[in-house]
Amino acid sequence: MKMLTNAVGRKIPQEVNGQKQTPFLGIGKLRPSGRKAGAPIRTCADYPPDGNKVVKNLRTALEKAGLKDGMTISTHHHLRNGDALTNMLFDTIKSMGIKNIRWFPSASFPVHEHLIKYLKDGTIHHIEGSMNGPLGRFVSEGNMKGVGILRSHGGRYQAIQDGEVHIDIAVIAAPTADTFGNATGDRGPSACGLLGFALADSIYADNVIVATDNLVPFPCVPWQIQGNNVDYVVEVPSLGDPSKIISGTTKVTRSPDRLLIAQYIAEFVEAAGFIKDGFSFQAGAGGINLAFLQYLKEKMKAKGVKARFVRGGSTKYLVEMLEEGLTDYILDGQTFDLEGVRSMRENFNHINTSPFTSYNYHGKGNFASMIDFVVLGATEVDLNFNANVVTHSDGYLLHGIGGWQNCLTSKCTILALPSFRDRIPVIVDEVTTLVGPGELIDVIITERGIAINPNRKDLLRAVKGSGLPIKKIEQLFEEVNQICGGKPAKPLLNRDKVVAVIKWVDGTVIDSVYQVEKE
Amino acid sequence: MKMLTNAVGRKIPQEVNGQKQTPFLGIGKLRPSGRKAGAPIRTCADYPPDGNKVVKNLRTALEKAGLKDGMTISTHHHLRNGDALTNMLFDTIKSMGIKNIRWFPSASFPVHEHLIKYLKDGTIHHIEGSMNGPLGRFVSEGNMKGVGILRSHGGRYQAIQDGEVHIDIAVIAAPTADTFGNATGDRGPSACGLLGFALADSIYADNVIVATDNLVPFPCVPWQIQGNNVDYVVEVPSLGDPSKIISGTTKVTRSPDRLLIAQYIAEFVEAAGFIKDGFSFQAGAGGINLAFLQYLKEKMKAKGVKARFVRGGSTKYLVEMLEEGLTDYILDGQTFDLEGVRSMRENFNHINTSPFTSYNYHGKGNFASMIDFVVLGATEVDLNFNANVVTHSDGYLLHGIGGWQNCLTSKCTILALPSFRDRIPVIVDEVTTLVGPGELIDVIITERGIAINPNRKDLLRAVKGSGLPIKKIEQLFEEVNQICGGKPAKPLLNRDKVVAVIKWVDGTVIDSVYQVEKE
Repeated sequence: MKMLTNAVGRKIPQEVNGQKQTPFLGIGKLRPSGRKAGAPIRTCADYPPDGNKVVKNLRTALEKAGLKDGMTISTHHHLRNGDALTNMLFDTIKSMGIKNIRWFPSASFPVHEHLIKYLKDGTIHHIEGSMNGPLGRFVSEGNMKGVGILRSHGGRYQAIQDGEVHIDIAVIAAPTADTFGNATGDRGPSACGLLGFALADSIYADNVIVATDNLVPFPCVPWQIQGNNVDYVVEVPSLGDPSKIISGTTKVTRSPDRLLIAQYIAEFVEAAGFIKDGFSFQAGAGGINLAFLQYLKEKMKAKGVKARFVRGGSTKYLVEMLEEGLTDYILDGQTFDLEGVRSMRENFNHINTSPFTSYNYHGKGNFASMIDFVVLGATEVDLNFNANVVTHSDGYLLHGIGGWQNCLTSKCTILALPSFRDRIPVIVDEVTTLVGPGELIDVIITERGIAINPNRKDLLRAVKGSGLPIKKIEQLFEEVNQICGGKPAKPLLNRDKVVAVIKWVDGTVIDSVYQVEKE
Repeated sequence: MKMLTNAVGRKIPQEVNGQKQTPFLGIGKLRPSGRKAGAPIRTCADYPPDGNKVVKNLRTALEKAGLKDGMTISTHHHLRNGDALTNMLFDTIKSMGIKNIRWFPSASFPVHEHLIKYLKDGTIHHIEGSMNGPLGRFVSEGNMKGVGILRSHGGRYQAIQDGEVHIDIAVIAAPTADTFGNATGDRGPSACGLLGFALADSIYADNVIVATDNLVPFPCVPWQIQGNNVDYVVEVPSLGDPSKIISGTTKVTRSPDRLLIAQYIAEFVEAAGFIKDGFSFQAGAGGINLAFLQYLKEKMKAKGVKARFVRGGSTKYLVEMLEEGLTDYILDGQTFDLEGVRSMRENFNHINTSPFTSYNYHGKGNFASMIDFVVLGATEVDLNFNANVVTHSDGYLLHGIGGWQNCLTSKCTILALPSFRDRIPVIVDEVTTLVGPGELIDVIITERGIAINPNRKDLLRAVKGSGLPIKKIEQLFEEVNQICGGKPAKPLLNRDKVVAVIKWVDGTVIDSVYQVEKE
């Protein structure tokens, strides 16, 4: 495998699964050309005039869609770890004797461990999409036939839109749908919130199958997925386990260290002057973030300040902000708990967004860069502020990218993380896998202090005299190494075997993931 | 000009404005191939990270968009006869010295008479789009440089989607917008309801300019037009005259003849068994249709029946149906009065649709064919049930097609019309211009009786014994000729000079419009 060195000094393969790759050129350096992909032109003459596209079962739909060896099949992670449909789908594909599928999920979860047998027997050739947990471990150990490709949510949209990934058949799990294929995730027994991750697939795939366990009379409203893009509708008894599709409630951290991090974030954004009328932010559903929201709310109330919009993943904490009048809008990309789902159904100002609106870098701007500050996590951060979200220091690929890369363009990107986990430092001299370049990462907030990127002199100035524990990142690095008894052991990697590559938001390759040698 | 004969026996030119044409082949006979058009791939690196795309004025936006001689510029008729923007746009184009523009409006109105000087001086080469009133007269008299092309709303979407019409610059009038280009028509001083006719343009045009007289902080919600498709935003003092953009209220007819027609429609759909739980229909905003709605409501209430959905053009009469619980949904393509606009803003179940969802024939089905019955008008109907909506019997092109052709695929298509107008018969032996083939037209309802297409034996059976004045169309034809003293005089046409062509919903040419010879 011929390797190239990219603009951040990482080695990346010239070709991946037979496709030529462009090495990462630097932020905003790639000049895309050409036109967006187009789905095949269809005619109403080929579709039932009464709009009823229901076919007997998944197998029939796949047959009608012309499923063949080597095709690309896409699925989505809206059902998270409660997803039964994707496993059912590949059981069906296997039963049809089909081989060498490129599986293109928006993400995979531990529940998809079921599919390892299909990776072994050649039903699935390789996975392009985030691999959380067991599938990542399987890939890390060099067991997958092809090379994995990880993209951010925005990068996945970009790849489909730009024609870099051509989807033959998209299979969309729809918690509610009508016979025409209009579909929504915000209601039904398997409600998951929204279906934005399937938007690109519905627009660009050659064939689109909607599977639902809650068929309603036309029209299914809202139509998060438009029936006009759908070929076949399939009824299934159940899409999965509702309790794993969505949490009853998301939970604030109780760890004193993590609560301290949350408090530091709140104090930092206040000191930096972000909390003012009309501001915006994005914070996910992790325990630290939820605690931060509680502190932030108190500060907003004390100051009498209202946000213009907040970006989800939504949780009951964001919903409270909306319903208490602390923000005009929630612009939501993914609902994490039942209150998020309810609010999306009931509140005009709880808005359904998508990787197109929020994250696509090959668009005419996107929402991510308009946000005042974003609070994210990481598995590792290094002395150059480069960060990793996909591998651990032992080299294992265990997490997806999600919207993380896309969010880095916010006006102030904050990584909030404990300085070590299981006595392994999180602040390292060099990240195992480089997923986000340090020039986009502005602030690191840990329980032992806050490091500000030296490029952000404005932020350094703003928080001067605030009493916050501002430190150089080198100082945090030293402190953590002392506590943990030294740097993490370097992973045992086979540098001759790339098991996956990490795409940047523009489709270039920013780093490689190598096979882990078992001891 | 070489002429071909199409499947309905009409002569059509082989080429129009240098582009080769496909003659109409029969309903559903064209087999489209290839892929949908794609807009150029852009990068966020070229757009302001804070999302602010506002430029100084229309001229600056046009310059940045690279306006050149011969380009195609699209506009939309959401502002109807109150539109000031399109005139302002062409004043600007003229002042820039640009020539030979193909103007591609979704429709034009009498207010655009202002543009005749630009058709004369070569600023505009020709119009592709419906021409209502003065522009139609100008074209009919052979004064336009190029040949006009008329399409239905769905046909316009199809032509853009299929790459048949490539738009260089789309200019979208937005009653409310934010600096990112998100736009809505349902609020603001120039509120018009929705912006669905600009949807295709926003997706497929090379450059998209949003012009607004009501700039709001991001996010503008709802985003009927997505800022992610927009290049430039321009503030203008006023988009036009609100009283001509939307009516205060739409008015029911007071003519006894027309009230009788409305009553017949209501009795016919009742007798035919359409009024039952879960039914659907579409009826526009003409005086007959509004009167029909009143009769229909009474019948629905008497029967205790609820519709699943009704299709607008919405008016206060449809809104009343929604708010009184007589329908679950309004699926609205165009709001005609202030109550329609208010309801679209306030009611979750008053749904914004588009030519993509409702009318595009080169899609995976559309809403139009799912509707139980539709009530439409016409300028002429002939003995074969063929109908005309664009020219009068004197040959003058004075009306657009609107969604009329697209609606013909409903389960029962009813044309409701007076049997004569100004003592000129509306039922004729052969239509001047064939816009809709008789095989799609099921019922003609006039004040003198009802004619059912002999192909629809089911309908003939259903209303047998209803006491309704069912007649053969030939009988209506004879009666009307007697009243009017004979058939309409044949128009004086120059058959060697095609001034416009009429497209069918699949992009083929169904008929030609000829130059009218002045006496």
